[in-house]
Amino acid sequence: MKSRVPGVLGIEHPILQGGMIWVSDAVLAAAVSEAGGLGVIGAGGMPTETVREEIAKARELTSKPFGVNVPILSPYAEGIFATAADMGVPVLTTSAGNPMTFTARAREAGMKVAHVVSNVRMARKAQEAGVDVIIAEGYEAGGHNGFDEITTMVLVPQVVDAVDVPVVAAGGIGDARGMAAAFALGAEGVQLGTRFLASLESPAHPRYKELILSSGDCSTVITGRAFGPVRVLRNRLAETILQAEGEGMAPEKIQEMIGSGRSVKACLEGDMDEGSFMSGQVAGMIGEIKGVREIITELVEGYERIIAAL
Amino acid sequence: MKSRVPGVLGIEHPILQGGMIWVSDAVLAAAVSEAGGLGVIGAGGMPTETVREEIAKARELTSKPFGVNVPILSPYAEGIFATAADMGVPVLTTSAGNPMTFTARAREAGMKVAHVVSNVRMARKAQEAGVDVIIAEGYEAGGHNGFDEITTMVLVPQVVDAVDVPVVAAGGIGDARGMAAAFALGAEGVQLGTRFLASLESPAHPRYKELILSSGDCSTVITGRAFGPVRVLRNRLAETILQAEGEGMAPEKIQEMIGSGRSVKACLEGDMDEGSFMSGQVAGMIGEIKGVREIITELVEGYERIIAAL
Repeated sequence: MKSRVPGVLGIEHPILQGGMIWVSDAVLAAAVSEAGGLGVIGAGGMPTETVREEIAKARELTSKPFGVNVPILSPYAEGIFATAADMGVPVLTTSAGNPMTFTARAREAGMKVAHVVSNVRMARKAQEAGVDVIIAEGYEAGGHNGFDEITTMVLVPQVVDAVDVPVVAAGGIGDARGMAAAFALGAEGVQLGTRFLASLESPAHPRYKELILSSGDCSTVITGRAFGPVRVLRNRLAETILQAEGEGMAPEKIQEMIGSGRSVKACLEGDMDEGSFMSGQVAGMIGEIKGVREIITELVEGYERIIAAL
Repeated sequence: MKSRVPGVLGIEHPILQGGMIWVSDAVLAAAVSEAGGLGVIGAGGMPTETVREEIAKARELTSKPFGVNVPILSPYAEGIFATAADMGVPVLTTSAGNPMTFTARAREAGMKVAHVVSNVRMARKAQEAGVDVIIAEGYEAGGHNGFDEITTMVLVPQVVDAVDVPVVAAGGIGDARGMAAAFALGAEGVQLGTRFLASLESPAHPRYKELILSSGDCSTVITGRAFGPVRVLRNRLAETILQAEGEGMAPEKIQEMIGSGRSVKACLEGDMDEGSFMSGQVAGMIGEIKGVREIITELVEGYERIIAAL
């Protein structure tokens, strides 16, 4: 597998686990790193003390490199970054904000930086900021989504053409076919979220995982298209939001209606009606809860098999 | 290149040209077929007499197989189909409607049938109807688009898993990287629209072609999301429609505002403000007007080079 990513991030396989609020904890991240990928603690919703605990726990569970994800616009961002840098976390993945915010400081602290982008302009900006890896995330990805709706198929080659740093593809990758496709497009790695959410090691509520298993190709929708797009599984909450949007309800009214704690309701409580179940379009491709090591082995072996067959 | 498509359709390379209203005429279709792909006359907007003339003209220009595209819900659909069947056109590609409508009759007339789908349910239905090839078209595709917004990256493997007939990938394929990715996902062929629109042989207005060359990754938008999604290049008309949609204008009012003849304004008149310039997201990847034969040769040779490099 031709890729600069393992060398840059100090990992065996160029497979990253996406940061997922309430889901990508130390246990999941350590399992991914132990299996040769890059596990990432999704720290966006965590106060500093929790981040510190999760990092310490991941350290106990693996001696391999792992990352911490910081959504740059999170109110906790500075605290998360300072904690991760202070504790010598090897990799910082940043998203949802200006890559200038943390890149230089992270690199001074000896961290490698991977930044998520959803269009070419952001990719150029990330390279200028000095990131080590760019994660190009397409419209099919779960959770927070770009406004430009550029799909992985067209985003990856355009980002690859625009920058020199290695590009990791995210969005729509559920199995080895997606990984092989990503490499054909010029990516040197993949980032998967939903596939790792539906793993044995993931702390997501069992009903969340069941919901993904029972999903089909049409099961996800984008809510908040006009003010903050998020891809979620279609449920009562999603339908309510879509209806309000269709009726022209003001964004602030919609956000008031959504309130807070919807991810907790989904991830921790498994509240099928009232939770916000973020998921990529790949949900329809996931038919079994698997261990993280099996997922990664299937990706790597499947990749080789597919390329050989082509 | 492992593919059943050349055998089924009687062509050299598994590369299809998408039907494009006012663009895919006999000249473009014949050029694609002459270069070893499947040229397709996009007959959706053509009265029967014009279809007859275009088919006759294509026959003069090439002795190789070509196709006629029928959008099933077009008011001209029955007439187009009857003309194509009567004149012994080798391939019928159908879209935007029930695959039962023409498939059996077309096959009785000795035609091969390829049907465009945008989700798994439609793919199963097409296979039941007896089509020879299924074209799985993702959200990134230009022109009329599915309501489900499933991207090529996730649509293709799910359709491949659901049916036994060969699957051709459409949407987001602008160069050999996209073609290699499509095959990695399990497709046995590709269909390209926008890339052929921006070819020397295409009859699209020069300003239409220029507009594609100057496009970036964020240049297309979906209009009519609620009542009939169409992917177009962002211009004054598109902005006007988006604004009306955002303000909650009723679909019938919007359609009244759009009126008819917008494609003619784009394709034939090159009216940059008032025309509807349909295009896929790949517009941002197209930097040069090329001859059809060069486009196809680059796809085939590039594919081999990419697979070898992987």
